[in-house]
Amino acid sequence: MVSGEFWHLCLNTVIYVHITSWRYGKLAIENLFWLGYVGAFGGLLFAFIQIRKVMAYPEGSEKMVKISEAIRQGANAYMYRQYTTVTIFFLSMFILLMILSIFGLVNQFTPYAFITGGFFTGLSGFIGMRIATYANVRTANAAQTGLNKALRVAFSSGSVMGFVVNGLGLLDLTTWFLLLKFVFKVSDADIAQTMVTFGMGIASMAMFARVGGGIFTKAADVGADLVGKVEAGIPEDDPRNPAVIADNVGDNVGDVAGMGADLYESNSNAIVATIALGFAAGYGYAGFLLPILVSTVGVICSIIGTFFVRTKEKANQKSLLRSLHSGVFVAGGLAALATIPLTLWLSHASGPDMWSIRWGMLIAVFAGIVSGFIVSYSTEHFTSDAAKPTRDLAQSSETGTATLMIGGLSLGMKSTAGPILAVSIAAIISFTVSGGFAGNEMAGLYSIGLAAVAMLATNAIILATDAFGPVADNAGGIAEMAKLPPEVRERTDALDSLGNTTAATGKGFAISSTAFTALALLAAYVNEANTSLGALGLAELDLRLTNPAVLIGLFVGGALAFVFAAFCISGVHRAAQSVVIEVRRQFREIAGLMEGTADADYAKCVDICTINAQKEMIAPSILAVLAPIVTGLVLGPAGVVGMLGGVIASGFCMAIFMLNAGGAWDNAKKYIEAGNHEGKGSDNHKAAVIGDTVGDPLKDTAGPSFNILITLASTVSIVFVGVATRFSIIDLIRNISIG
Amino acid sequence: MVSGEFWHLCLNTVIYVHITSWRYGKLAIENLFWLGYVGAFGGLLFAFIQIRKVMAYPEGSEKMVKISEAIRQGANAYMYRQYTTVTIFFLSMFILLMILSIFGLVNQFTPYAFITGGFFTGLSGFIGMRIATYANVRTANAAQTGLNKALRVAFSSGSVMGFVVNGLGLLDLTTWFLLLKFVFKVSDADIAQTMVTFGMGIASMAMFARVGGGIFTKAADVGADLVGKVEAGIPEDDPRNPAVIADNVGDNVGDVAGMGADLYESNSNAIVATIALGFAAGYGYAGFLLPILVSTVGVICSIIGTFFVRTKEKANQKSLLRSLHSGVFVAGGLAALATIPLTLWLSHASGPDMWSIRWGMLIAVFAGIVSGFIVSYSTEHFTSDAAKPTRDLAQSSETGTATLMIGGLSLGMKSTAGPILAVSIAAIISFTVSGGFAGNEMAGLYSIGLAAVAMLATNAIILATDAFGPVADNAGGIAEMAKLPPEVRERTDALDSLGNTTAATGKGFAISSTAFTALALLAAYVNEANTSLGALGLAELDLRLTNPAVLIGLFVGGALAFVFAAFCISGVHRAAQSVVIEVRRQFREIAGLMEGTADADYAKCVDICTINAQKEMIAPSILAVLAPIVTGLVLGPAGVVGMLGGVIASGFCMAIFMLNAGGAWDNAKKYIEAGNHEGKGSDNHKAAVIGDTVGDPLKDTAGPSFNILITLASTVSIVFVGVATRFSIIDLIRNISIG
Repeated sequence: MVSGEFWHLCLNTVIYVHITSWRYGKLAIENLFWLGYVGAFGGLLFAFIQIRKVMAYPEGSEKMVKISEAIRQGANAYMYRQYTTVTIFFLSMFILLMILSIFGLVNQFTPYAFITGGFFTGLSGFIGMRIATYANVRTANAAQTGLNKALRVAFSSGSVMGFVVNGLGLLDLTTWFLLLKFVFKVSDADIAQTMVTFGMGIASMAMFARVGGGIFTKAADVGADLVGKVEAGIPEDDPRNPAVIADNVGDNVGDVAGMGADLYESNSNAIVATIALGFAAGYGYAGFLLPILVSTVGVICSIIGTFFVRTKEKANQKSLLRSLHSGVFVAGGLAALATIPLTLWLSHASGPDMWSIRWGMLIAVFAGIVSGFIVSYSTEHFTSDAAKPTRDLAQSSETGTATLMIGGLSLGMKSTAGPILAVSIAAIISFTVSGGFAGNEMAGLYSIGLAAVAMLATNAIILATDAFGPVADNAGGIAEMAKLPPEVRERTDALDSLGNTTAATGKGFAISSTAFTALALLAAYVNEANTSLGALGLAELDLRLTNPAVLIGLFVGGALAFVFAAFCISGVHRAAQSVVIEVRRQFREIAGLMEGTADADYAKCVDICTINAQKEMIAPSILAVLAPIVTGLVLGPAGVVGMLGGVIASGFCMAIFMLNAGGAWDNAKKYIEAGNHEGKGSDNHKAAVIGDTVGDPLKDTAGPSFNILITLASTVSIVFVGVATRFSIIDLIRNISIG
Repeated sequence: MVSGEFWHLCLNTVIYVHITSWRYGKLAIENLFWLGYVGAFGGLLFAFIQIRKVMAYPEGSEKMVKISEAIRQGANAYMYRQYTTVTIFFLSMFILLMILSIFGLVNQFTPYAFITGGFFTGLSGFIGMRIATYANVRTANAAQTGLNKALRVAFSSGSVMGFVVNGLGLLDLTTWFLLLKFVFKVSDADIAQTMVTFGMGIASMAMFARVGGGIFTKAADVGADLVGKVEAGIPEDDPRNPAVIADNVGDNVGDVAGMGADLYESNSNAIVATIALGFAAGYGYAGFLLPILVSTVGVICSIIGTFFVRTKEKANQKSLLRSLHSGVFVAGGLAALATIPLTLWLSHASGPDMWSIRWGMLIAVFAGIVSGFIVSYSTEHFTSDAAKPTRDLAQSSETGTATLMIGGLSLGMKSTAGPILAVSIAAIISFTVSGGFAGNEMAGLYSIGLAAVAMLATNAIILATDAFGPVADNAGGIAEMAKLPPEVRERTDALDSLGNTTAATGKGFAISSTAFTALALLAAYVNEANTSLGALGLAELDLRLTNPAVLIGLFVGGALAFVFAAFCISGVHRAAQSVVIEVRRQFREIAGLMEGTADADYAKCVDICTINAQKEMIAPSILAVLAPIVTGLVLGPAGVVGMLGGVIASGFCMAIFMLNAGGAWDNAKKYIEAGNHEGKGSDNHKAAVIGDTVGDPLKDTAGPSFNILITLASTVSIVFVGVATRFSIIDLIRNISIG
């Protein structure tokens, strides 16, 4: 059996790596570059096996195949259009970076690093989405025989995404590093800059994918619901609804491709930030190797974890969740254990001066993992309909829509406290134990970065438990449209609702790891800026919070998070209005549609979503790229630091607020639909449906985009640091007023 | 005629002051302390005249008197209870400060300064509210004869509040300063500390008044509307609604007393912060005198401005607004003109070293005033139903409640950009022109404080145009309950709706002046902390944003604003639920209530609002006081600076977001009620009513409290700086890890 073989292979590799490394100590370190490829190809190979597994399942009836093809075509059409739009942006930035490199403001590798970053991010999302559009119909078909089989198909499809993301991430990070270090033999500073530009490309593509996909999926969802469910009174996923295919396409381009790109970004940029700081801390090659190895170990442990995900046929929500959790916990536990010798050895191997902080690194790794779980737990507590907050929220529907809205807003705002405290405490612990306060500031910050890497090490399996949700959702849609027996829909619904809960974990990890990554990138920025200023013969940055440039930057950063959110939300708002108008038109103009004798023009709705999502994604994405550049030109590098501080603090709170408010509204609705507070069809339920609709763009478009906003703004700042240190208005004024 | 005399008196005083001062230059400065009393007693005398004017109007029929007495009694009962609750807090803090002063952590004047600050704040709110409860019935009665007369009564009542606030502010600030300087002859540092403690007392009381009053008024409003309007289908202010008196009481305790305390706080703390920085900048006595004189000039010009507020009988909304605006603009223009010689002279008089920055101060004053108007304009743009944003919002009601909610949220978030940029630019200009970047940092920060003082100088008349709104609102209620002819209600409604628009101006000034004040207080904190550290033989603060203590503080500050908002909103939520239950009970149990043959138990509803408001106001208020102390104990003074930065940036955005989202929902409803989008009673209107109800706690409870949160957190931080510099956990860790 393949599972047994893998188990052995993986375990042996881990043991071999540890024993060999420990024995050879420092001697071996320069020759261990290939270990990154173990994780990369291990992950990709496993993903490939999962693809074959998924494809081996039968597709079901002709009708199901036809529906699934329509969804796939729509998704492909969207992706094609998105890549076309994005190409223009990438080419412009490529040219800009070329020009900057001619003037020596960035090194000559950055344009290519930027392009490849974008390419691999897009590729991750695309592969994951592609397989999801094949897996949806197979899941629906498997659900005809049983729950366990359906879970296996959907989960395998989710695994593809998970392992492609981490495998590709390791592949190109390792390759870039090795090329720069051993082939082009460039300086450490240039390696750091190139890697960060690579990260900027990743974040740019992730931003387009997340925001564009998020707008598509919510515009289709809201549009389909508003006219179909509310006005026409037909059930969800009814084939008579012209937006039904668009809705299912949305799951794939938003919840799969968008999320994949997003987590590719979180994972890769955590590593990039840590590597960049590794140079600043003087760790050199070991500073690069450690995050890569932690990530590699994570991939291997994730592979092992997947074999623990299985369920009995008579499974309920609870046992399903337990089965998924067991996979995640096995992977996490193994990875944590494996990290212990790895960290101790590598910190030892890289010289006696690092020996003193090896425990610090180890504690940082654990602090990161623990805080990630606390944030996930907090998210689950505030959004699960088994817990008090969401039940209270459902209760408040009894006094009407207004109180339900107020309740959700205050729930979301209140829920920011726990995650902020967890992340803050973990960061301060990581910094302190690594000697950050004892004069070794860069080491402390490196450990903060490492905490983020560790948190995302088993990203592959977390993402797998997350990405199967939309596949199950799609399967349910296909079952409904193909008029499969009701128990099929029940099974896919069980999987779908499970996916909603596990999605909370994934989002919790994404945003909290980003907080750490952002701190690391901020430090990297300061380092780069001071180097640049030093080269210009200027004094170091005045980063005191009382420097008005920093303070005003802080204000601007705070507002940036709000305006960005507004763009995302109003993008959905406008796009949904267009869908509403089109669906109403089709109901009005296509004779026989409601009677089921004529087909709706599904492609038209997909088209409208595509066009609008493309149009609306531009403003928030460009805002995130331009804000740091303009801030740098006006307020100088110190202002940029303030702005980054503002957008991190504000963006983190906004993300938690929106994710939890939206999640709670969603689950309050489900709780009422389960028969509580007078159940489906009551006034309370109507109020809850409104709450859910309001929460949709918050939790699926704006909320999950803040982490990308934060890293994108940070990486753009670093890449354009040379511009800010040379050409800012504030420095001009300062020079005039001093001189 | 009294108006003519005043005109002359005021103008002569201004001219006399200028000429005398200019002639005697530096010689005169020490003898000019009495000028503060000119503003103080001038303002109070004018307020007294307005009180007599209001009281001279007849009260109307017996029924009206009876209703007005019920409202007055309810308001008094609330205030009595509030002061009782608050007394416990003030006594505890008094004892705490006493203990700290014994250990030398604060000086021995601080406990008394704290108490008096609270006392005067409470007194301002109380006097304003008291006269409002006499003016409401007189306004209703005057509205029987005409619009102009009603405006005069209501506006006179609003003026009382305006002038009491600025008059009392000048009175006690001047008195404290003179006592400390000339009687007790304490050091400049101790004067600064005492003044800031005074400011902390002010902010504490303002917090209780604003949050408690805000919860009361919105609980009563939401409760009355949900059961009365929506469930029972009776009109607003119908005497059969048991919560109708509570609703009217709420206008007085929240919109009058709460707002009065709030603006007393903004105004006084702007002066306090500027004075504190004046010492740090080495301006000494002149640094004290300038903000006091700017404020004095503002009071005098405001008195002049009030004579320009009059309207013709056939006035419409537009001409009424013009009439109010003309008063504000005349006052503002005169004050701006008068500030020119004042600033130039005082900066000249205090020594040659200040000569170089006199223009800086002047430009700062103008930058402050201009940015205040831009923020107000932006607020009006986003919330006025004559402008596109609110009209678009009203339009989105056509696709249902959900899109209206989403639209309002994104409108509010988008609207943060303008005010943030306006305030940022003004702050950076003020700092730069005063030589902040040329090594004279404290002078630059002093000018930022001065900008806030200037912005609020004509606070008295702005507040007057603001505080007459709730009086007119109450008058409408009395007219309805006393069954006066419909044209009376029409007239009071015209005034009320006018008040909603002018309230936007007041709130805009309050929050933007607070941004400046907060920057000044932040600088004062750093100054105090470094002095304290210096006395302990320790190094200066590491305020670089890359210091994890600062960064984590920033996170905590950001979350503080969100959690504070959640407490305010959920406080209203819970209190409103209690009102709903009580009103439903009375409708059910009191026989003949709906038929009008039996009286409702109004007092019971007032009582429930009072009890709940008292209970719910505690958590947010205590949070604001404890957060800086706990942050100081954990993260040390650098962490406190970060926290203040976070709460300023986040709080400012949240305030603008909530004020504008709430205002836009309110006016979108009014726009629909005016007959647009199918008008009253339509589904669109129902959606808009929900939007309005959701917006209520945002715009009237949480939104206007952020400025107090910011100053309260800042002043508490300064007062407890000695604790943070000595006993923080992080310093303990640092010492262990270094040693």
